Amino acid sequence: MARSGKYVFLFEEGKKELKESLGGKGANLAEMTNLGLPIPPGFTITTKACNYFLEHDRRHPPKLKEQVERAISIVEKKTGKRFGGSKNPLLFSVRSGAPVSMPGMMDTILNLGLNERTIKALREKTRDERFVLDLYRRLIQMFGEIVSGISPEKFEKILADIKEKHSIKFDTDLKAKHLREIIKKFLALYKRETGNEFPDNPKKQLFMAIDAVFNSWNNKRAITYRRIHGIPDSIGTAVNIQSMAFGNMDKNSGTGVGFTRNPSTGKKEMFGEFLLKAQGEDIVGGIRTPQPIEKLKKAIPKAYLKLEKIANKLEKHYRDMQDFEFTIESGNLWILQTRTGKRTAEAAVKIAVDMVSEGLISKKEAIMRIQPEHLDKLLHRRINPNEKLKIIAQGLPASPGAASGQIMLNADEAELEARAGKKVILVRPETTPEDIHGVIASQGVLTSRGGMTSHAAVVARGMGKPCVSGCEKIVIDLKKKRIKVNSLVLKEGDIISIDGSTGNVILGEAKLLEPEMSQSAKTLLKWADSFRRLGIRANADVPKDARKARELGAEGIGLCRTEHMFMAKERVPIVQGMILAVNYSERKKALRNLLPMQRNDFYGLFKEMNGLPVVIRLLDPPLHEFLPDSEALLKSIHLLEKGKKKPRELEEKRILYKKAKELSERNPMLGFRGCRLGIIYPEIYEMQVRAIFEAAFQAEKEGIKVKPRIMIPLVGSGSELRLLKNLVLKTANKVMEKNGKRIEFKIGTMIELPRACMVAGEIAMHADFFSFGTNDLTQTTFGFSRDDAEGRFLKQYIEKGILKTNPFIELDRKGVGKLVKIGVKNGKKANPLLSVGLCGEHGGNPNSIEFCHEIGLDYVSCSPFRVPIARLAAAQAAITNNQKKK
Amino acid sequence: MARSGKYVFLFEEGKKELKESLGGKGANLAEMTNLGLPIPPGFTITTKACNYFLEHDRRHPPKLKEQVERAISIVEKKTGKRFGGSKNPLLFSVRSGAPVSMPGMMDTILNLGLNERTIKALREKTRDERFVLDLYRRLIQMFGEIVSGISPEKFEKILADIKEKHSIKFDTDLKAKHLREIIKKFLALYKRETGNEFPDNPKKQLFMAIDAVFNSWNNKRAITYRRIHGIPDSIGTAVNIQSMAFGNMDKNSGTGVGFTRNPSTGKKEMFGEFLLKAQGEDIVGGIRTPQPIEKLKKAIPKAYLKLEKIANKLEKHYRDMQDFEFTIESGNLWILQTRTGKRTAEAAVKIAVDMVSEGLISKKEAIMRIQPEHLDKLLHRRINPNEKLKIIAQGLPASPGAASGQIMLNADEAELEARAGKKVILVRPETTPEDIHGVIASQGVLTSRGGMTSHAAVVARGMGKPCVSGCEKIVIDLKKKRIKVNSLVLKEGDIISIDGSTGNVILGEAKLLEPEMSQSAKTLLKWADSFRRLGIRANADVPKDARKARELGAEGIGLCRTEHMFMAKERVPIVQGMILAVNYSERKKALRNLLPMQRNDFYGLFKEMNGLPVVIRLLDPPLHEFLPDSEALLKSIHLLEKGKKKPRELEEKRILYKKAKELSERNPMLGFRGCRLGIIYPEIYEMQVRAIFEAAFQAEKEGIKVKPRIMIPLVGSGSELRLLKNLVLKTANKVMEKNGKRIEFKIGTMIELPRACMVAGEIAMHADFFSFGTNDLTQTTFGFSRDDAEGRFLKQYIEKGILKTNPFIELDRKGVGKLVKIGVKNGKKANPLLSVGLCGEHGGNPNSIEFCHEIGLDYVSCSPFRVPIARLAAAQAAITNNQKKK
Repeated sequence: MARSGKYVFLFEEGKKELKESLGGKGANLAEMTNLGLPIPPGFTITTKACNYFLEHDRRHPPKLKEQVERAISIVEKKTGKRFGGSKNPLLFSVRSGAPVSMPGMMDTILNLGLNERTIKALREKTRDERFVLDLYRRLIQMFGEIVSGISPEKFEKILADIKEKHSIKFDTDLKAKHLREIIKKFLALYKRETGNEFPDNPKKQLFMAIDAVFNSWNNKRAITYRRIHGIPDSIGTAVNIQSMAFGNMDKNSGTGVGFTRNPSTGKKEMFGEFLLKAQGEDIVGGIRTPQPIEKLKKAIPKAYLKLEKIANKLEKHYRDMQDFEFTIESGNLWILQTRTGKRTAEAAVKIAVDMVSEGLISKKEAIMRIQPEHLDKLLHRRINPNEKLKIIAQGLPASPGAASGQIMLNADEAELEARAGKKVILVRPETTPEDIHGVIASQGVLTSRGGMTSHAAVVARGMGKPCVSGCEKIVIDLKKKRIKVNSLVLKEGDIISIDGSTGNVILGEAKLLEPEMSQSAKTLLKWADSFRRLGIRANADVPKDARKARELGAEGIGLCRTEHMFMAKERVPIVQGMILAVNYSERKKALRNLLPMQRNDFYGLFKEMNGLPVVIRLLDPPLHEFLPDSEALLKSIHLLEKGKKKPRELEEKRILYKKAKELSERNPMLGFRGCRLGIIYPEIYEMQVRAIFEAAFQAEKEGIKVKPRIMIPLVGSGSELRLLKNLVLKTANKVMEKNGKRIEFKIGTMIELPRACMVAGEIAMHADFFSFGTNDLTQTTFGFSRDDAEGRFLKQYIEKGILKTNPFIELDRKGVGKLVKIGVKNGKKANPLLSVGLCGEHGGNPNSIEFCHEIGLDYVSCSPFRVPIARLAAAQAAITNNQKKK
Repeated sequence: MARSGKYVFLFEEGKKELKESLGGKGANLAEMTNLGLPIPPGFTITTKACNYFLEHDRRHPPKLKEQVERAISIVEKKTGKRFGGSKNPLLFSVRSGAPVSMPGMMDTILNLGLNERTIKALREKTRDERFVLDLYRRLIQMFGEIVSGISPEKFEKILADIKEKHSIKFDTDLKAKHLREIIKKFLALYKRETGNEFPDNPKKQLFMAIDAVFNSWNNKRAITYRRIHGIPDSIGTAVNIQSMAFGNMDKNSGTGVGFTRNPSTGKKEMFGEFLLKAQGEDIVGGIRTPQPIEKLKKAIPKAYLKLEKIANKLEKHYRDMQDFEFTIESGNLWILQTRTGKRTAEAAVKIAVDMVSEGLISKKEAIMRIQPEHLDKLLHRRINPNEKLKIIAQGLPASPGAASGQIMLNADEAELEARAGKKVILVRPETTPEDIHGVIASQGVLTSRGGMTSHAAVVARGMGKPCVSGCEKIVIDLKKKRIKVNSLVLKEGDIISIDGSTGNVILGEAKLLEPEMSQSAKTLLKWADSFRRLGIRANADVPKDARKARELGAEGIGLCRTEHMFMAKERVPIVQGMILAVNYSERKKALRNLLPMQRNDFYGLFKEMNGLPVVIRLLDPPLHEFLPDSEALLKSIHLLEKGKKKPRELEEKRILYKKAKELSERNPMLGFRGCRLGIIYPEIYEMQVRAIFEAAFQAEKEGIKVKPRIMIPLVGSGSELRLLKNLVLKTANKVMEKNGKRIEFKIGTMIELPRACMVAGEIAMHADFFSFGTNDLTQTTFGFSRDDAEGRFLKQYIEKGILKTNPFIELDRKGVGKLVKIGVKNGKKANPLLSVGLCGEHGGNPNSIEFCHEIGLDYVSCSPFRVPIARLAAAQAAITNNQKKK
């Protein structure tokens, strides 16, 4: 139940702080009205009314009707027009506006209030029958579609048939007589489809439209959007009822959308598009390709200059880049809405950093404005400029970055192919909210129609995917499932590349370059570093990755997985030799061969990380991972047996098969691996530790500062670590004695078993550091085998809402997180000097990083490309946390 | 460092409460001395002295020598003899005696103090040269073996050679001249082996013997025994130095061991054996077969009567059955030691129950005296009395119960065979502590020599294994690896059976009957039931097991694993059909076929458990467990392909193979199983729930009181349980509506994932009960796959002391237990009505049961045969816990 009985606010009664109640659009219309901007008068019905309506079996809250009628009469006074009046009739637009921006998700109806009487009045007033009839046919169509759910195609078909019949190409060429014909057929269609006459009463139209907005809160598109973006279902939408301004009134009229800065690059320049003689939906729908906003300067100069001033004022007022809609009616500029503008990650960073230098916002604010995940998109891939490309067409550069993939013309099928592991480019005449799942699944989007602010462009930018829009040279044949560019015919499945930064469409797969960070991003991240408390390290196994990590700001290696070094192709036979060794001395021999290789690996890492800590995890996976799969061996044994040739190869395969069977485990994840290996075959760890220290001395001799950190995996008890710590110390001492000097090093352990968290106190007695291995900890805590779960039930668990998110991506705070907390507490209590980090994939996930900050970890470690994200997320966590404390 | 400087206690200075310091033997010698029993005077060196010695590089604690010398002089005064004296020389025995009884593990030396001078003096005093020389040759042999580590065989060989040379059969037939010859050779052997002369100085002999006892604490046998029995290494042993009484003095002399009750049956009668003219080690060593104690009545009547009185006094004083040693020297009875007697489980129960009726102990004491694990042995298997047996020999019924297995003549090889899964009977001339691992590995023990108190008999009784000892008819040829019984020759590997209750040895495998409980055991368990708080249920899947469980006192079924019902041979094709079903309706069809079968299963259980709760767990294992192994399929496909026949079978195998591959998981333990199955394929759980309720109504119509409890496995979040609870309710309601009435039932869940413990609060909101599945919880908490771990590293973990016990047998309190505690706390907090149990294998493990009691569980559930153990353990936990609280 609503606490207050006020459900209707005139624009002048609101302000931007009432967003929750008035929705974003309504609050901003109110704010702008009070700022003195030219806003067509109107009022907003609150979200509370919507919630009441949805919770009370679609009944209006008490007195809503009276409040709306009172508001109408005030607007009538202001405009000097009358709703349904026979002289100077007032028309309304009705738009939804939720507290959270949901572009394209909700519905708009224009020109409400038209009926025989008002049409006549308006025709008399404007002396433009064609204009008035065009308004009416638009009303019937929008109303029919949105309020009464009539399929858009049915209207479009009538329109197309009549255009064809009269050989008319553009809607703008329709004459009044054609429009009369269309209106007649539209009204008949309406009756046929709904069983009712098209409503004649303006108020009836209005209230039906209001209810339609309320209902649209629960349409499938809206629900999908909310699910994707994590918006609660309970907030509801407001309804904005605003007097119409007509961008299609005459040649001095038009409509457009603008941004106060370039949403693609972040450059400080007014950016946008407009259409002359058009109503709003013509532009956002992407049906006609609009002109860039600079051209408005020539077309209606006065309006352009005023718009520039307003844009400036809006940005200063809101202290953020704005995305606004405007209409020019016979030369008079009206602002229809403003909101914080969506932007590419690149633009977001540039704008935030620029606004700090402009003195508009603080560094903290700049940091808080960037979604860490968006930094991922910052590092856009580019097409190698040295490559010769076969450019087949050029469209608008709607969302930066480049991508390659197979052409798919249908969102559903694009999704299916993507699921099957294919890279796809979604190619559509234009996209609609119904195509969102296809956009999500694709590498990039190419449309033949629509501008820089078309649905496809907005959505792709939001997702950080490359998009080329309005590429009109491409002719799409949805039936034959192919596209034509001049004489070139491409089928679904053929590979193309798109470059969303240039608009180029390229035949075949283009070579993509890995991204580099912009100067703004570097500045922002430097600021972030000054705020964060968490250290950021990277997971890297080879010098190349270590170098990249350092470049991107890593403060050390938090996890070097030595098994990846074992898997190098030329080493596999040696590793297999070690595994097949029948006794200790044979095994030692194989290990002796591995020693120089490992030493060289570690030397390379130390060199790259000069002065920074390098955490090296000793061998972790079960040994059978280094052998071929036993079934594959069995199959090739059968083949060799059939061929009756290569007896030696057959014998080798048989030996491998026997060993693979011997070592095979029912649950390798819970098997003979980690420190268990090190305890049963101490010679393996001994070799690795020796290689580490020999490499350290080699590097040190070259003036490199080495900080080795030895990490024992899969420890579940204090005794395991005690035993292996002794082994490490003994081996390290041997090498140090030989070199006649000491090296500073530390010994720690992965905490990746629930038991380790429970007995973290006894483990901490023997550890300099803990590193929470939350990948494995998530597997054991949930009893989920990652490999098995994701394919079999995890997706359905998330769909059914059993799990909110994938716990392998976002750390499960309730379960795994609680164990981590217990582990940290027990560990630090037993050993106050203990350093504590995290090196699972969660180390690069912003939400998880926030958790790590909150529970007092010392550092996180993530893959090199996620280091910038982690730096930013850590800063945000520190800022949020301080704010919380205050 | 010892806190007190007193390391030597005269017997009269001690008491039984000083066991920790004086050892069991020393404390009892002191106690008996003060009771006024005839104890040869002596003194005890404390365990502290031993620990000092072992910790200080084998140096004596300060003033030990002086204290020993002072004690000797007091004993000299008491006995009127002198140690090393030339008139009436005093001889000592030296025996170890730890605070915990360790039979056969430690070493004894008799007759210390003999040298040329004392031999002469003694010969003059006794006028029996042969006797004195025999003492001396024994001294040299024992001293040589124990103090100087000379191999016993070397002494035995000299003895045997001389016996052969003079055609002497028994040691007792050796004349003085033979003994002189032997002594000469023994002394030469001693010099040859040690490089030193045999020590002549009595005090030197004594101190060397004392040090040998100290050192023997760390010999391999002792360490093994301590490891097996969980005795800490740190307690050390005391040394008892006692004036000798000579059982080999004359015809009126003898030595023996006795029990105050029958240690095999528990019957109230003096029980034991003796040898005339013998020293103690002759009897415990089992080398000569002794006479039953009743025969002493005839042999030395006065001594026998006195012994009976003493036995009575001892038992009243100690309030428990005693095992004592005595020596009769020229008609004078001396008691050499007493201790609580080892007994069979059967005897233990009978004695405890009898002592309650005799008013000697309380019911609580009776309960606390029985090790719950021993009840397992109570339920001894018997040979079917109706079977015709081929009895090939009869020995002594040394440890009750029957067993079959292949003959193995060597402990090491017996162990190897047992590891390979074979059942073995260890057949030895006699056993020694070195054979313990062979006894452990075997089903039962058969010896050709030794009596009811021989090593084999004592050890087998302790372990609850059947044993037939002293079966002299069997001739063992260790070299040829065979045994002969008259003309019958049996090789190693041939199967025999033994009956430790009758002493029969049977050719081939005898049919064994499952055991029944004795009246005493039933009484004891009834008492236990009145003390325990924990409920005891059983894990049972079929009516037969349910019946057995109820017979043994189970108060319900705590876990019925429905998958075992799926695995019945005739059902597998139907289950496979369900798995191979390509769609929902095919799957439903297969499930329809399973429904009546499952219904019948549940009906049978309800009938057996009339009035008691039956917890039924819905399907848990991954579906691929019902398909053949994919490699086996691959192999048979290859075979069929080669044969080019049976195309239909080939096709079937191929389909099965494809599905098996599709369903195969890397880590099935963490895979698509448990409630995950029920969520993705609700129709399976639906069928099971329907079967349960239909069966319930069927049973109810027959007047059976049904209490179904539906249990959802592998839950890790509240939402899973909420979802499946709804499914159960919906299905149950359908069946109940159809029957027009309701049935009382409950819905609960297994808690077997670490996450479930963490979020137990949210789970408990939807649960009537929790049942901790500690098998799986142990796997996930440790990250141990039970199947993989036990073979690969778990054993070595225990050997290396990384784990104290196998966590799959004894609940790991520190890790798994802590999680269980958290789960109980969270669960009960959220739902105070929650009932909480445990149904892992730990439910039958006494230590784990104690833990369950302590943390406030409501019940445990274990396999039917462990129900009595659980009842007793639960009572002990309650008693201990109450005592702790006071």
